[in-house]
Amino acid sequence: MRITAVAGGVGGSRFLRGLLAAAPRAQVTVIGNVGDDITLHGLRVCPDLDTVMYALGGGIHEGQGWGRADETFAVAAELAEYGVGPDWFTLGDRDIATHLVRTQMLDAGYPLSAVTEALCARWKPGVRLLPATDDRAETHVILADDDGKRRAVHFQEYWVRLHAPQAESIVFVGAEKAQPAPGVLDAIAEADVVLFPPSNPVVSIGAVLAVPGIREALESSAAPVVGLSPIIGSAPVRGMADKVLAAVGVSETSAAAVAEYYGPSLLDGWLVDEADAQQAARVEAAGIRCRAVPLLMRDADATAAMARAALDLAAELKR
Amino acid sequence: MRITAVAGGVGGSRFLRGLLAAAPRAQVTVIGNVGDDITLHGLRVCPDLDTVMYALGGGIHEGQGWGRADETFAVAAELAEYGVGPDWFTLGDRDIATHLVRTQMLDAGYPLSAVTEALCARWKPGVRLLPATDDRAETHVILADDDGKRRAVHFQEYWVRLHAPQAESIVFVGAEKAQPAPGVLDAIAEADVVLFPPSNPVVSIGAVLAVPGIREALESSAAPVVGLSPIIGSAPVRGMADKVLAAVGVSETSAAAVAEYYGPSLLDGWLVDEADAQQAARVEAAGIRCRAVPLLMRDADATAAMARAALDLAAELKR
Repeated sequence: MRITAVAGGVGGSRFLRGLLAAAPRAQVTVIGNVGDDITLHGLRVCPDLDTVMYALGGGIHEGQGWGRADETFAVAAELAEYGVGPDWFTLGDRDIATHLVRTQMLDAGYPLSAVTEALCARWKPGVRLLPATDDRAETHVILADDDGKRRAVHFQEYWVRLHAPQAESIVFVGAEKAQPAPGVLDAIAEADVVLFPPSNPVVSIGAVLAVPGIREALESSAAPVVGLSPIIGSAPVRGMADKVLAAVGVSETSAAAVAEYYGPSLLDGWLVDEADAQQAARVEAAGIRCRAVPLLMRDADATAAMARAALDLAAELKR
Repeated sequence: MRITAVAGGVGGSRFLRGLLAAAPRAQVTVIGNVGDDITLHGLRVCPDLDTVMYALGGGIHEGQGWGRADETFAVAAELAEYGVGPDWFTLGDRDIATHLVRTQMLDAGYPLSAVTEALCARWKPGVRLLPATDDRAETHVILADDDGKRRAVHFQEYWVRLHAPQAESIVFVGAEKAQPAPGVLDAIAEADVVLFPPSNPVVSIGAVLAVPGIREALESSAAPVVGLSPIIGSAPVRGMADKVLAAVGVSETSAAAVAEYYGPSLLDGWLVDEADAQQAARVEAAGIRCRAVPLLMRDADATAAMARAALDLAAELKR
């Protein structure tokens, strides 16, 4: 079975571990979000790709779900001594090695997809990890100050430094000229199942969909596209999805509202949490098959069960 | 008093500490060797400039005379895990922060002299530290294999990886088009005294002299130029000066031979060790004033005494 998953960072990588446990013989391709990517201290940092790579490759800091286990921060402490910012984004020493290898390869002319493959040669994540695009398509957030003045900040500044204040709109800078990375469209066209993990629908999966061609490929794919709600009740399970949903015109924070935001042309099936079972009828009325199952990734078994439920729904949709 | 010193790495920086102790009120400008500079993992590394900066700024590893105190090597260990070489040159974590700041500024278009000034704003070395040139003038070593085939290696590879085998010749790649960094020629012209610490005459001071204009400025300087022999007896005090002296046609490893290599048009005074007192007459016969004093930098006091002896000889030459 060929499974193609669109993934953000922490939530996506946790779900992928469950997926690999649920379908150990599947060939899994992951289309990773690159909208969060940022250049810091001259180093190209790809937080979501690295989170997937470290998490599936056994290098992740399990407690926080991102960054390296047993990390140290000698370089960051020295950069602070030099007074070189930003002070709101701290790179760990082990992590920096990844960025050094990546930056050197990018500077030598290799596309990000080739760099990611080279890094994965060490980590052996058990999936084929593809960046959504080799081009720059950065997620920026437009904020409106109290006096109505607007300013744009990089997603990382919005998220890490500003802690996700109310956003006016989201802009994927450069996305309109970006092309899907080699293999991305084929991975969608040749998939038996496409999955949307419970990642942020706007700044994780939405940033992937912003690359021209990817949404169209998903819409025309013969494979069922099944997603898992990142919202349980009226709040995101993790992160601040509610803050960015409003910025794309979704004023209601609910599993059903996210399904409607994706829409039936994109989404064939949708899993909501048991707590949101009463929303299933609304989702189905929108033309999306819906099931209610436990959606909290509280441990490996629970996460594998979620992945199995998604694959079951996909199988049902294929009949 | 304005003192301008030409400096290599470890020996140069140790001497400079003695100089600052001997002449605490002097304005000292250091013209640093950049021939050893190398790009590793995409980072621009300037070993000699950093050795001076760390040594005079209180950050040096006192035992080895180069690199940072309390250094860690998490990044290097990770780079090794990625299989990314070279494995014969290990960058410490704290040191990497310096190279990140430098590389980012160079990439932004700042010349090395401006970058060095910015780094020194943190370290406050008590001297004005100037690179010999902002241009690339890298020391490469030509080696002849047993079968007569020649190959060129970067100085760092020659020194660190190959441990200084017999060299056929030395080439300062790019030096012919290099220009002295801003301030270098003025520092020579306006100096009251110019000093050559007991650094390697070929690959440290020689690499500085290879930048067109610097040798000429020293030769026409009104200030006395006084050097200290890096050779005591028939061996270099530190490093492998004998190996590279042969490559520039100096077959004899002695204090007098180094003085003759510099020559009287460049050098006005020369200090040899007491053990080499019998060579003084030969040096003087070559037109260079010579004194024999203790030249082992065994501690801060001995080093300061050496600096005082050099300044005394300079004062004598000015009369």
